[in-house]
Amino acid sequence: MAGTGLWLIGARGSVSTTAVSGLLALRAGLAPPTGCVTERPEFADVPLPRWDELVVGGHDVVSTPLEKTAAHLAASGVLPGHLLGLIGSDLRAVDAEIRDGYHPVSHHGSQAEAAERMVADIVGFRERHGLDRVVVVNVSSTEPPVPFVPEHDDLAALESAMADASRSVLPPSSVSAYAALRAGCPFVDFTPSTGIALPVLERLAKDLGIPFAGRDGKTGETLLRTVLAPMFTARALRVRSWAGTNLLGGGDGATLHDPSRAASKLESKARGLAALLGHDVTAPLHIDNVPDLGEQKTAWDHVSFEGFLGARMTLQFTWTGLDSSLAAPLVLDLARLAAAAHADGQSGALGALAVFFKDPLGSDEHRFAEQTRELYRWAGELAR
Amino acid sequence: MAGTGLWLIGARGSVSTTAVSGLLALRAGLAPPTGCVTERPEFADVPLPRWDELVVGGHDVVSTPLEKTAAHLAASGVLPGHLLGLIGSDLRAVDAEIRDGYHPVSHHGSQAEAAERMVADIVGFRERHGLDRVVVVNVSSTEPPVPFVPEHDDLAALESAMADASRSVLPPSSVSAYAALRAGCPFVDFTPSTGIALPVLERLAKDLGIPFAGRDGKTGETLLRTVLAPMFTARALRVRSWAGTNLLGGGDGATLHDPSRAASKLESKARGLAALLGHDVTAPLHIDNVPDLGEQKTAWDHVSFEGFLGARMTLQFTWTGLDSSLAAPLVLDLARLAAAAHADGQSGALGALAVFFKDPLGSDEHRFAEQTRELYRWAGELAR
Amino acid sequence: MAGTGLWLIGARGSVSTTAVSGLLALRAGLAPPTGCVTERPEFADVPLPRWDELVVGGHDVVSTPLEKTAAHLAASGVLPGHLLGLIGSDLRAVDAEIRDGYHPVSHHGSQAEAAERMVADIVGFRERHGLDRVVVVNVSSTEPPVPFVPEHDDLAALESAMADASRSVLPPSSVSAYAALRAGCPFVDFTPSTGIALPVLERLAKDLGIPFAGRDGKTGETLLRTVLAPMFTARALRVRSWAGTNLLGGGDGATLHDPSRAASKLESKARGLAALLGHDVTAPLHIDNVPDLGEQKTAWDHVSFEGFLGARMTLQFTWTGLDSSLAAPLVLDLARLAAAAHADGQSGALGALAVFFKDPLGSDEHRFAEQTRELYRWAGELAR
Amino acid sequence: MAGTGLWLIGARGSVSTTAVSGLLALRAGLAPPTGCVTERPEFADVPLPRWDELVVGGHDVVSTPLEKTAAHLAASGVLPGHLLGLIGSDLRAVDAEIRDGYHPVSHHGSQAEAAERMVADIVGFRERHGLDRVVVVNVSSTEPPVPFVPEHDDLAALESAMADASRSVLPPSSVSAYAALRAGCPFVDFTPSTGIALPVLERLAKDLGIPFAGRDGKTGETLLRTVLAPMFTARALRVRSWAGTNLLGGGDGATLHDPSRAASKLESKARGLAALLGHDVTAPLHIDNVPDLGEQKTAWDHVSFEGFLGARMTLQFTWTGLDSSLAAPLVLDLARLAAAAHADGQSGALGALAVFFKDPLGSDEHRFAEQTRELYRWAGELAR
Repeated sequence: MAGTGLWLIGARGSVSTTAVSGLLALRAGLAPPTGCVTERPEFADVPLPRWDELVVGGHDVVSTPLEKTAAHLAASGVLPGHLLGLIGSDLRAVDAEIRDGYHPVSHHGSQAEAAERMVADIVGFRERHGLDRVVVVNVSSTEPPVPFVPEHDDLAALESAMADASRSVLPPSSVSAYAALRAGCPFVDFTPSTGIALPVLERLAKDLGIPFAGRDGKTGETLLRTVLAPMFTARALRVRSWAGTNLLGGGDGATLHDPSRAASKLESKARGLAALLGHDVTAPLHIDNVPDLGEQKTAWDHVSFEGFLGARMTLQFTWTGLDSSLAAPLVLDLARLAAAAHADGQSGALGALAVFFKDPLGSDEHRFAEQTRELYRWAGELAR
Repeated sequence: MAGTGLWLIGARGSVSTTAVSGLLALRAGLAPPTGCVTERPEFADVPLPRWDELVVGGHDVVSTPLEKTAAHLAASGVLPGHLLGLIGSDLRAVDAEIRDGYHPVSHHGSQAEAAERMVADIVGFRERHGLDRVVVVNVSSTEPPVPFVPEHDDLAALESAMADASRSVLPPSSVSAYAALRAGCPFVDFTPSTGIALPVLERLAKDLGIPFAGRDGKTGETLLRTVLAPMFTARALRVRSWAGTNLLGGGDGATLHDPSRAASKLESKARGLAALLGHDVTAPLHIDNVPDLGEQKTAWDHVSFEGFLGARMTLQFTWTGLDSSLAAPLVLDLARLAAAAHADGQSGALGALAVFFKDPLGSDEHRFAEQTRELYRWAGELAR
Repeated sequence: MAGTGLWLIGARGSVSTTAVSGLLALRAGLAPPTGCVTERPEFADVPLPRWDELVVGGHDVVSTPLEKTAAHLAASGVLPGHLLGLIGSDLRAVDAEIRDGYHPVSHHGSQAEAAERMVADIVGFRERHGLDRVVVVNVSSTEPPVPFVPEHDDLAALESAMADASRSVLPPSSVSAYAALRAGCPFVDFTPSTGIALPVLERLAKDLGIPFAGRDGKTGETLLRTVLAPMFTARALRVRSWAGTNLLGGGDGATLHDPSRAASKLESKARGLAALLGHDVTAPLHIDNVPDLGEQKTAWDHVSFEGFLGARMTLQFTWTGLDSSLAAPLVLDLARLAAAAHADGQSGALGALAVFFKDPLGSDEHRFAEQTRELYRWAGELAR
Repeated sequence: MAGTGLWLIGARGSVSTTAVSGLLALRAGLAPPTGCVTERPEFADVPLPRWDELVVGGHDVVSTPLEKTAAHLAASGVLPGHLLGLIGSDLRAVDAEIRDGYHPVSHHGSQAEAAERMVADIVGFRERHGLDRVVVVNVSSTEPPVPFVPEHDDLAALESAMADASRSVLPPSSVSAYAALRAGCPFVDFTPSTGIALPVLERLAKDLGIPFAGRDGKTGETLLRTVLAPMFTARALRVRSWAGTNLLGGGDGATLHDPSRAASKLESKARGLAALLGHDVTAPLHIDNVPDLGEQKTAWDHVSFEGFLGARMTLQFTWTGLDSSLAAPLVLDLARLAAAAHADGQSGALGALAVFFKDPLGSDEHRFAEQTRELYRWAGELAR
């Protein structure tokens, strides 16, 4: 490939800054690709863009320079301190490719106008850099769920509503998804926001021959749940309750402490657990904002289960992760994989990428091992 | 099948008593088959012996009646108290089928004579009950590892040494395995003892057309490790250390506190971890005897791993299980599966049963999900 | 002492049934006094009622016999199974001393009439058994907090409102406290309900020369917090956040899952933590109803703290307790201690008993060690 | 006070470098005194040397500059990165006050000669800086326990043996202690090594009118044990087992992985637990070297206890600390407190400092709260 664009919605956030910093480090040979799934042997023959073929730009509603966010991430243990000096000028170059994002509060005019400008931003970026294609990845803050309206299932009605400056028929993530499609770009939703997950947009993607993937990157507690739950099932052990608590700081903690936004996340987590176990369980789940934890996220899960002759047993785990460190390499992986799918002519939901998501689009499979196998199978086909 | 025997080496121990009590409960419809893998839908069409077709006998070196051990297990939460009254007479019937086991200290005469008597016990049991076949399962106490001697690779030399009353060329578990083979019976080793895992015995099984499986039932910490380690690998995360502590009471705690016996267990655990991760890691592991825990086993594991750009993260888990409750249904599963393999004419190591074992014979696969898939595939072939 | 009555509000609940069963076992020499603070050497010379001098009665709104609840508790690991047969007739004798409790929904008439009947029940019990005194202990379900009204600070206004059958000016726990005082009995509140903690009732107790103690027995997570928090303070370590999750089954889980009732509990917990640390901290706290845990309560706390030069460290703990087992001996202790205080002529809030409570009345001290010392000092004075 | 010296044995190690860096930061107002016990209000009126009155020197057998160790500690999260630039020249000034330490392998000549040279180093330091006094604190690597020989109880015999160049009658830590005493300096042992804990040296200190304190700084698992164990005792709960695992990297991990050195540590821990609980318990304890943890130390403890009527419950905790961060402020505290005791004319073991140590000299009290109270009482007397 001559060049592939990675256009990040929320380009100045922690996940994005980590992904960009890491990409620059990988390209310069300053770090090994730890955490990058697409660097595993199973992908050796898949025609993926190389690290030095990826060019980054994006939208964001804030204007903090990447370098400043990177310094903050270094203080939090996400980025190694010595890296900052080495990639500073490259970060500034990426900064120059970031355009103002869409936010209903600050935007004047209709959503159609907003989308049009975003399309122009993306197309301009693609042409300026002579890129074969651009993958749009949403890594912006989680939005609250939105109520379904008829326009979400009818393209003409949607576009007419978007043209009405007095309405905000789409949440911002879906405006981005729409703009990506209209720019002819694959779209990946790494957040639990609505994004492309509206019937009208999924259909539009299919009609335009564009692939998409999502949603809600699987990086911590849910990752473990989709690994552990199949064990109980395979061993015919009966899970009686599965309680979870998540402590998180950073912007994510503040966002998800807002119950309406947490709702998106909690719903997507609960759907998965019942699907994995094949039955409902008592599953209280909390997300707490604990600012002093910074970028760190700590999850505690308590699983109570029943074995032979009713014997009662428990499993507890504590996961202490750096969310941005876990998410960033997957964002790069998804950009590469979505680009390869696009090059291959695939369109619609890429169910084979389910392993990356808490709430996979195009797949009902939640079991991590089965999802991994499906990813490898799909990659193997691309490699032919 | 008209009838299948389950002959337990260590028939009066906790695992055996739980398995027998559970079998009686299942047969009487007093309990659901929680924890029994072979009751999952994947086995619906596999020609397995039904619960009421299994007849139990065994060897043991102790003489405590099953009822007494069952009462102790009820006090420990392994068996439900109300069950005891309901299965008492059936337990006494099984007791009547238990013969003196072989122990080098109490035995007078050669190992050949011991084996001959054991063969007679098993054959007598098979004939008395008109059974199609008998599966021998070793659930006796863990033995220390034994040094390899040339007789372990040469049948004639072995049998000549066994005939020499002044030698104990085989550990007791291997005498049992030899006897099982000479009686024409499939052999399953649920312990980490030597058992059938000597070249001479593996070859003998093949020559005689007898299947076997082992070894060391995977019921707790190792089960979790084989579930979790592949997640790190699939996500390209680098595990830096994996420390473990096991607290156990019961006879097992006392046995494994003996460093020479623990050695078997620790070796079999370490082999698996390196195989799973594809590289060596710092992996201190302890087994502590904590008598007050009774039948309960608590394991704590601390995994330190590295992600993108060197970010450091950890996973801890605490598993609190009742070992006998976890092991017993698998013992029943293995009896059924080995019987089906024998009926199918299979011989040698049953690698498809690797999912049941910490140190699988006939398989290099340690990943739980892959082992599970292999088991289902194999079962599917039997079902045809 | 010739005889001391223990009158339990909520006499048929888990805590009460455990306390009564234990008292019967202690009296019969069937169990050691594990968990009984007043059996420690520091109390050897304090004039406390002996186990065989305690006579039990009480109020409850349910009618399940103690024996039935005891059988349930035995199945949950709270009571040893063999005990049931030995104390059955004694339990039935206690059952005969339990009267209908007050509940606004089922009660017809004024709260004054309800209180009058309760006074008569308690006085009748005292006279029937020729007791020196009766200690009333509230172990009934947690109530929601109640809004303060002027009658809560004015006896005449209160009693006038109580006489009005159309009003429920007091929550049930406070009706019980009022009745206890009017019967001349010391009152102990083991729950976080309002109980005696209204200005008007505290004053009435003082005026009548009656001692009281409360509230909310300190048996699990809060116990640990009042033990651990002073360590951070004494070591000049700065706690940044202290997050907690409580999983509980049983009736308590269901009650506290009701957010309005949990509010009482959460408030009393939060007050203590800030007091202990000397500053506010981020302290998210959850109580989840997990029915399958039965009588067991599992709490997980995650403490993030800062040390020298800003170093970040954490402490986590998991407490797995049987709430009734932890509470019951303290109920017996409190009955003995309140009786001794009454015999000694003390009146008003017994701040020296603060160690028993999450939200101590008559004391600002939350540190466990300091509370313990104060208890011993007070006991030492009684012993003179 | 005009000036107080702090002479560190093991001056180039992690604890020492952290203490020195912190002292420099405190003196310059660059950091708050988090973790410094002597900055609590209870010490407001105690005549302690101020931070800017402390002058640092020491002995070490290695020659790595403090700045280099400090850089390593910054990378490990112990020191804040920005601090290094600010204190660099001050660190170099301290470096200039560090002299070669004594090590039997590299030393030529008798222990008497070694001690003489060390005395000269310390006295020279005191005179050069015009200090009122110098406190010697041992923070060097843990030594293996040494067998007792008669010279350890007889000064004349000891000094005669020390003069014999063919003998090493004292371990290095005790040579340091001897030198401190001969230089007229208070001695504090922050390690579990022998140090001053020999009858002959304790007597010598008394005879010379010199105070001393030790040993083995209480900074992690043991700190928690001495906080938690008294809770079980005060509540009359019976601890059945208390298992512990310590994972540590850094030099300490490597040192303590050597079973003979770990022995010192394990012995001192075990003595404390039995003393705290008043009876022996099953208490397996492990120290594992896990290099990737760096300066971090993670301890997991599992406490199994019995409550009312034999109910079985557990407490687990996981402590994740930075050992040097926890130890360093205590080293500064001890220097201040030992200096104040010396100025006050006290001599012999300072039992009032027991709260700082796992194995307190001059005190049998292990309970953290009681030790804290005793410290405050003692400080109060100094304040008069």
